[in-house]
Amino acid sequence: MNPSGLERLIEALRCLPGIGPKSAQRLAYHLMQHDRPGAARLGEAIGHALQAIRHCQRCNTFTELEICERCASPRRDASLLCVVETPVDMNMMEQTLAYQGLYYVLMGKISPLDGVGARQLALDRLLARATDGVVREVILATNFTNEGEATAHYITAMLKARGVGVTRIARGVPVGGELEFVDSGTLAQALRERRNLESS
Amino acid sequence: MNPSGLERLIEALRCLPGIGPKSAQRLAYHLMQHDRPGAARLGEAIGHALQAIRHCQRCNTFTELEICERCASPRRDASLLCVVETPVDMNMMEQTLAYQGLYYVLMGKISPLDGVGARQLALDRLLARATDGVVREVILATNFTNEGEATAHYITAMLKARGVGVTRIARGVPVGGELEFVDSGTLAQALRERRNLESS
Repeated sequence: MNPSGLERLIEALRCLPGIGPKSAQRLAYHLMQHDRPGAARLGEAIGHALQAIRHCQRCNTFTELEICERCASPRRDASLLCVVETPVDMNMMEQTLAYQGLYYVLMGKISPLDGVGARQLALDRLLARATDGVVREVILATNFTNEGEATAHYITAMLKARGVGVTRIARGVPVGGELEFVDSGTLAQALRERRNLESS
Repeated sequence: MNPSGLERLIEALRCLPGIGPKSAQRLAYHLMQHDRPGAARLGEAIGHALQAIRHCQRCNTFTELEICERCASPRRDASLLCVVETPVDMNMMEQTLAYQGLYYVLMGKISPLDGVGARQLALDRLLARATDGVVREVILATNFTNEGEATAHYITAMLKARGVGVTRIARGVPVGGELEFVDSGTLAQALRERRNLESS
C-alpha cells in the first residue's frame, strides 16, 4: 500500500526494540510528514556513530578513543575494578561520588533464555583485565535480578579460581526506606546480612 | 558521560514521537551494542526516503511519483472524492473493497491546540482538487473525534460555498455490535440518524 521507499523505512525502524509494525508506520509517517530535518539529523547521527563509536580496550564501555578518558585518568585508583552491566549503571555509580576506582562494563548479563552465556559476554576479556597484576579487588555491581545474580556468581567463581579478591555491593533496606514498605525478600536479606556496629 | 557521537545519536533519536531521554539512550545503546547492521539499514532507509518520498500532486498521499498510481488509474471513479486524515485511513477504506472513487489525504486534521488550522492543512489544495469539474461528490471520512468532526465541519462549509456536493460517512452502532455494549453517545446518534426501511 505504501511506496517502496516508505516501506523500507518502516521495515528498518523495526530494528528499534519495542517498535512493532504499527508503531514503525506511525514513526515513518511522522518523520516524512512533520520532521524531515529531524530525520536528516537522525540519519547523519547514525552514520557518524557507526563510524566513531567503539569499545574501550580496557573497560569495554562506549568510547571514540582506543582507551576511554576514565581508564586513561591518572587520578583513578587502578587497584579497584567495579564490574557493571551497562554504561548507564556505570554512570549511576559515578553519580554516587563514592567510588574512585576503575570499571569493567559487561555490556549485558548472562541470560541463558536469550542465548547469552559466558562466551557471548566475552568474560575472558574481564579475566585478563582483572589479572593484570594491578587490580586488588573486583567489586561486582551487577543488578540484583536473577540474571544479574547469576552473572555475579559466574564471575565470582571465575575470578576466585585465579586468586583474585572479589566483593559484592550490599543488599538491604534502601536509605530512607521504611520497613513497612520494603518487600519481605529485601528485609530477609537485610537481616541475614546484618553487620556488627562499632562502638563509637 | 557518553562520548559525543553517542550523545548526538541519543539526541537525534528524540525526534521520534514518544521517545524521551531515557528511551533514546536505551535505543542508542541497543543499536551500537546489538544491531549495527540494523542501524546501518535504518540510516540508509532514512536517507533514501528523504530523497524519494514526496506528496502526490492530486491526492496528497505519500508517493515516489508525481501522481500516485491510484490517482493515475483509469479504473477508479473520478467523480467521487473521499477525504481522509492519513494514508492509514485511506488503506482502511481500500480494505473495505466498497469504494472505487479517488481520495484526498489531509495529512492531519484541524487542531487549534497544536496550532494546525486551515492554512497549515493547505485546504486550498483540497478546494482546487474538489472543484476540478469532474468531482461530483466529496465524501468526508475524517475520524469521529473532536478534531476530525471540526475538520469535517470546516471542509463542508468551504465546499458548500462553492456548490460542491458533500456527504459524511455514517455514524452508528458497529456491525456485530450489541446495544448493551455501545456507548450512549453512539446509540443516541444511531437513533437520531435512523433511516427509513424500504419494503422488500
